[in-house]
Amino acid sequence: MQINAARVNERLAYLTRFGTTPDGGVTRYAFTPAEQAATNTVAGWMAEAGLEVRRDAVGNLFGRLPGRRPGPAVLTGSHLDSVPNGGHYDGPAGVLAALEAVQSMKEQGIVPEYPIEVGSFIGEEGSRFPHGLLGTSFLTGTFPCDEIDHIADRDGVTIAAALRAHGYDPARAAEAAVAPGTYKAYVELHIEQSGMLEARGLPAGIVSGIAGMRQARGVIRGRAEHAGACPMDLRRDPMPAVAEVILEVERAARELSPATRATVGFVQASPGAANVIPAAVELSFDIRDLDGDRRDACVERIRTFFDEVSRRRGLTGEFEVQHTSIPIRCDAHIVQTMHEAAAAINLEPFELPSGAVHDGANVSLICPVGMIFVRSRDGLSHCPQEYTSPEDIAAGTSLLAETLLRLAK
Amino acid sequence: MQINAARVNERLAYLTRFGTTPDGGVTRYAFTPAEQAATNTVAGWMAEAGLEVRRDAVGNLFGRLPGRRPGPAVLTGSHLDSVPNGGHYDGPAGVLAALEAVQSMKEQGIVPEYPIEVGSFIGEEGSRFPHGLLGTSFLTGTFPCDEIDHIADRDGVTIAAALRAHGYDPARAAEAAVAPGTYKAYVELHIEQSGMLEARGLPAGIVSGIAGMRQARGVIRGRAEHAGACPMDLRRDPMPAVAEVILEVERAARELSPATRATVGFVQASPGAANVIPAAVELSFDIRDLDGDRRDACVERIRTFFDEVSRRRGLTGEFEVQHTSIPIRCDAHIVQTMHEAAAAINLEPFELPSGAVHDGANVSLICPVGMIFVRSRDGLSHCPQEYTSPEDIAAGTSLLAETLLRLAK
Repeated sequence: MQINAARVNERLAYLTRFGTTPDGGVTRYAFTPAEQAATNTVAGWMAEAGLEVRRDAVGNLFGRLPGRRPGPAVLTGSHLDSVPNGGHYDGPAGVLAALEAVQSMKEQGIVPEYPIEVGSFIGEEGSRFPHGLLGTSFLTGTFPCDEIDHIADRDGVTIAAALRAHGYDPARAAEAAVAPGTYKAYVELHIEQSGMLEARGLPAGIVSGIAGMRQARGVIRGRAEHAGACPMDLRRDPMPAVAEVILEVERAARELSPATRATVGFVQASPGAANVIPAAVELSFDIRDLDGDRRDACVERIRTFFDEVSRRRGLTGEFEVQHTSIPIRCDAHIVQTMHEAAAAINLEPFELPSGAVHDGANVSLICPVGMIFVRSRDGLSHCPQEYTSPEDIAAGTSLLAETLLRLAK
Repeated sequence: MQINAARVNERLAYLTRFGTTPDGGVTRYAFTPAEQAATNTVAGWMAEAGLEVRRDAVGNLFGRLPGRRPGPAVLTGSHLDSVPNGGHYDGPAGVLAALEAVQSMKEQGIVPEYPIEVGSFIGEEGSRFPHGLLGTSFLTGTFPCDEIDHIADRDGVTIAAALRAHGYDPARAAEAAVAPGTYKAYVELHIEQSGMLEARGLPAGIVSGIAGMRQARGVIRGRAEHAGACPMDLRRDPMPAVAEVILEVERAARELSPATRATVGFVQASPGAANVIPAAVELSFDIRDLDGDRRDACVERIRTFFDEVSRRRGLTGEFEVQHTSIPIRCDAHIVQTMHEAAAAINLEPFELPSGAVHDGANVSLICPVGMIFVRSRDGLSHCPQEYTSPEDIAAGTSLLAETLLRLAK
């Protein structure tokens, strides 16, 4: 089916005005004027397209194209919030591609068997409140509602206060959870956030699954001493121990599988002076894999090495797992449908994993999930340089439209 | 001659209040309120002792006991600044022992042939500005005054700005350099910072020479990307490259000689978030040896490895030598005088080298230099646990007083 490539790209460009930063990026947190303006704008476009527009009890926005049957519906969408000084494609591309697919169907007189709903979910990034995937946590009934008065942003504004300030009753937030069987499928288009599609020369790809993440924090403690006075063989220096661990993190991920990713993004020596052997060095670990067991094996391999090197060097190590998310496999039927959709638009079908977590990870708790990735220039995301070409947006939107058409049949 | 052991130890204890850390250590950087308060306190004690007190053009503090002749003077002293969360003895012990020796002479009516000046030199540690031995660099005319507007602390405050903020005119900083022949000798008492005196059961020792230091800063730049999205083989991650370099630093020093010391005391990743592959990682290098050629060979080995690993991993590396001090041999006449002074107080004369750089390395450019070390418990320094007993402070102060008395004759 045809989609209007100019319209979806014009709308993407229009949204960039809400929350623009001096670097040309965007800062658009949940329940802020910029995010509300972007959401209201999209709601207007949904109404223009003739969709049935509504907000749920926490402000998730929906635009519904009715089907021949009342339900269950096919859900598609993404989010409009951003990380601080992020890019203009992460989130909005998925909301607007979904709207474009559904609007084109309506314009072409296509009435699906099942309804299709376009969703824009609040607070996916977790950049304001320390709880990512916020909107779909409410939607799937997994948000801990007794925490609504406690989880607060850096200014102390709680989620409850933010809801209240925007006309929602926090006491009724649990009503955002949908009944079982409400949705038959969820499909999200998102920018890829890495260079795999670019390396293959493809505008879009089919996501095989969303990696599960495990984050940990390590500290190795030794003895601070004068860098000049203390001979090498009398040192208890945590720095080379941490260096060994960093190299093991890289080795472990490389050796386990091409889908395993392990990163040390933070490292800090204390006291951190050029002429002092550090008393302690702290580092972060971020380990992800589509296969949860392999991810855990990677974490355990690193932890074992961490303990071994600390002991061997006469140091003390602390290794603490801080956060874990489960990996999900995309639904086999949806993936197969995407292969058929790709064939219909002459797109080479290429499957790739998602290393980043998305709303689909939540929605998989209530229905089968699939994702489409569109190419990111230089693999960049979460920064002002984030870019997906109009042609790639169009190709991804076509793939999404063909997929929705088949799923809603 | 007698010294007042209680007074010197009481003064040492009094100074601990300026810049105390929660761990019981001290953070007292050049031109900060804590360092200024400590310096003003010592200036007050100098005045109380009847010395002629003055500051030079960059804030080095001097207290002068006149001699029968106008000059040249014997200079003695140390520094009051510290490393971050360092100890209370490194620096202050030398300033207060010098003051005690001179004050005791004055109280006992001893008028030396030549003047004796007690000095407290600014910014010895180089913990704030990346230029150690700052005060004696100005004193000896070796500070590159055209850099005064460029060398800055981590907050971007330049040395010139810090001087201006404390009432000194940076345009006149070069006036701190003394005329040739101003000093006939320099003697500094300092804590040992390693375990050699403790192993010998001696309170104090005579330093034979000071290792030469070379400090450098390295940055390896790659590409910031999403830690979950970017596969291992597409990364340009500077973190494992820096880990390789840190291990090479350790290897190089161990392989070159037992007197070679190489340390990475500072490391920082940018942006430094657990879920972002770093765009850049910065690290410090501190390489020392009593043999200057061997020290330089160590630096070059590390620099070559640094460039090689950056290239091999597709990254860009910058390696910049920031500060160099030459190794020095202590003056034979002063060492001989110290042996006589030790005999006068029944102290076993024991010679040992200094792995740490001290202001004496600079001052050796303008006059003969000698140093006295006092025992450090467990060889610890640059940490809150740094400790020298009151008895050892007293023994070292006596050795210093006897030495000054002889040199100023």
